[in-house]
Amino acid sequence: MAKRQKSGGKGDAGTKLDALAQAVVESAYRQQDPAISIPIRALSNVNFNERSRYIEMGDKAQTRNLFNYGQAKRFMQTMLVGSKVKDLIDAGKTASIRQIYYISKHTIKGTNEKTFDDQDESDPILEDLEVAVDALREELHVFAAGRGALIGELTFVDSGDTIDATHLGTGGYAIPSIVEPHVIQFKKCAAKFILHVEKDTVWRRFVEDRFWEKHRCILTHGGGQPPRGVRRLLRRMHEELKLPVYVLLDNDPWGYYIYSVIKQGSINLAYESVRMAVPDAVYIGVSSFDFEQYDLSDDVKIALDANDIKRAKQILEYPWFAGKRPWEREIKKMLKNGFKMEVEAMCSKALSFVTEEYTPERIRNKKLWLD
Amino acid sequence: MAKRQKSGGKGDAGTKLDALAQAVVESAYRQQDPAISIPIRALSNVNFNERSRYIEMGDKAQTRNLFNYGQAKRFMQTMLVGSKVKDLIDAGKTASIRQIYYISKHTIKGTNEKTFDDQDESDPILEDLEVAVDALREELHVFAAGRGALIGELTFVDSGDTIDATHLGTGGYAIPSIVEPHVIQFKKCAAKFILHVEKDTVWRRFVEDRFWEKHRCILTHGGGQPPRGVRRLLRRMHEELKLPVYVLLDNDPWGYYIYSVIKQGSINLAYESVRMAVPDAVYIGVSSFDFEQYDLSDDVKIALDANDIKRAKQILEYPWFAGKRPWEREIKKMLKNGFKMEVEAMCSKALSFVTEEYTPERIRNKKLWLD
Repeated sequence: MAKRQKSGGKGDAGTKLDALAQAVVESAYRQQDPAISIPIRALSNVNFNERSRYIEMGDKAQTRNLFNYGQAKRFMQTMLVGSKVKDLIDAGKTASIRQIYYISKHTIKGTNEKTFDDQDESDPILEDLEVAVDALREELHVFAAGRGALIGELTFVDSGDTIDATHLGTGGYAIPSIVEPHVIQFKKCAAKFILHVEKDTVWRRFVEDRFWEKHRCILTHGGGQPPRGVRRLLRRMHEELKLPVYVLLDNDPWGYYIYSVIKQGSINLAYESVRMAVPDAVYIGVSSFDFEQYDLSDDVKIALDANDIKRAKQILEYPWFAGKRPWEREIKKMLKNGFKMEVEAMCSKALSFVTEEYTPERIRNKKLWLD
Repeated sequence: MAKRQKSGGKGDAGTKLDALAQAVVESAYRQQDPAISIPIRALSNVNFNERSRYIEMGDKAQTRNLFNYGQAKRFMQTMLVGSKVKDLIDAGKTASIRQIYYISKHTIKGTNEKTFDDQDESDPILEDLEVAVDALREELHVFAAGRGALIGELTFVDSGDTIDATHLGTGGYAIPSIVEPHVIQFKKCAAKFILHVEKDTVWRRFVEDRFWEKHRCILTHGGGQPPRGVRRLLRRMHEELKLPVYVLLDNDPWGYYIYSVIKQGSINLAYESVRMAVPDAVYIGVSSFDFEQYDLSDDVKIALDANDIKRAKQILEYPWFAGKRPWEREIKKMLKNGFKMEVEAMCSKALSFVTEEYTPERIRNKKLWLD
């Protein structure tokens, strides 16, 4: 496993927050300047671990002191948010980052000074707290906006309710932001794999064609870039149910990027990768070689613009793509093609070509995988 | 009920499409210029019906001819999309507007001419077809991206699966785009009302506090501006289950606009209002008067910008707001305040103030309603 920040004590997030607060109180009693250590969340402190295949944080940390003119405000903000989060945990409630901002914001008595001027100030404090106590945001009872849905061969319990995901009609289960084991427990799984697609509209194609039933799988989508809840659920299903994760995305730099985040984690939130990323996830398509492979018509071509070209070149430089021959071929081929293609492009052959022929073949034939 | 476009024959959408095609074929046999009549979808042909309280289309229509240099391409595009839609209906399949674009796009044999250059061309053709045959997009088997979720005191059937919405954990049912009676049938309803909130994060506050259970209701959100599936489902639940619809949105012009679309329909798609709008929907908050009413702190104020002020003044001119004293007071008060407020602002009093005090009071006290 990747290295993790070790400060903040052991146990659950509430205990860790207590330990953090206790350390501050003790320094005060000893008449020392209270300080907390916060791992640095910046590109300079992010590495790709070749062995674990996670993007992960390094060991650099900064100390935040109370008696330091440049740090005092942020020190107090960190304590304030920490205390509000502890209240949430104690009350068994959760809140959005926006709600955290509102419950933490107030004008300090006898001054015109506000604890926070806007949410741009409270969000990074929350991220500091996550790394300082080594807890996922969800363990701090904080949720993000939800997006994405699930259907397929899985029965699970969500907050005491048993949900059979083979009986959710056409709508499916709306994946919440917090999917930690205290909320969701897996009960019965007849699936052989997970198919994650980029968009709701493609997911509906698979749902309507009952792909999950024919191929015994779990179908998910993340409404574009998958939010934290979807990524965490993919990771948990992969790990606990031992299911391979196949990813079907558009053939464009954005699709490559989404795959990269699912597989290795995101650069901005590198400290989460160890519990969010799925290093074994496989990209099954759409590939730059599919145009010839499937004899597609010119009608599916969408010209690359300057930004696409720039992004593709950046992605080619990512250390987790750079060394890999198949990915280098894939991205260079897209640049050579001069066009990108969507999953929906497969509809130009036949509406259900993507569910009946393309995807089954891509899953069956490992030679077509991008790993 | 409001007047509806009458062309396109009777019966289901498939029958209506057949009738449209038949009329074209017959003109051809009679050696006449084939033509179809398409109601005009423009502001000039939109009225607010004071009696039904729908935004609805007027009677103006245009004729689209094959033997007219300026109309021939669009005539053929309309026939092409009509035929693809008929295939969908016959196959019992549905497709997104993007998928419709891909299945309709091809290069005409022996030319370099494409049937469609991009989706901006095929989308309006689909809307033409909807009004020409007087069928909702969903009846033409075409879906939009889904967004929004539902939880609460309702048991319904979706495509043969019975779903008890009191047992969906924290995630809820992801509302699909097509919620027509052939897909969704209501079975058992213990709810006394529907509470629709703007955002997923606010909805989660209500779900976590089990508002739906305490107050016996159905909770929905639309992820911002509610998509077609959510609006249509609200309308069906309101009409078939005889449930009042209470709407809780941010106190800003965007919130007013969302309410307006739920209640009266949208201006762009006026022809749908008659089956999508809920003229009896009630706006329960957040109101411009809440700042004083609930003794909120300055911390919740978000300054109006130039665009907010412009939008608020436009909305004040909408015929369905213009005549109404409470709405005039409400919008003018917001302009006078000089600030807007989010539903989350209520968290500044206490995290669950919105579910435990604010909303129950707003529902109970009709004097606080904006109707």
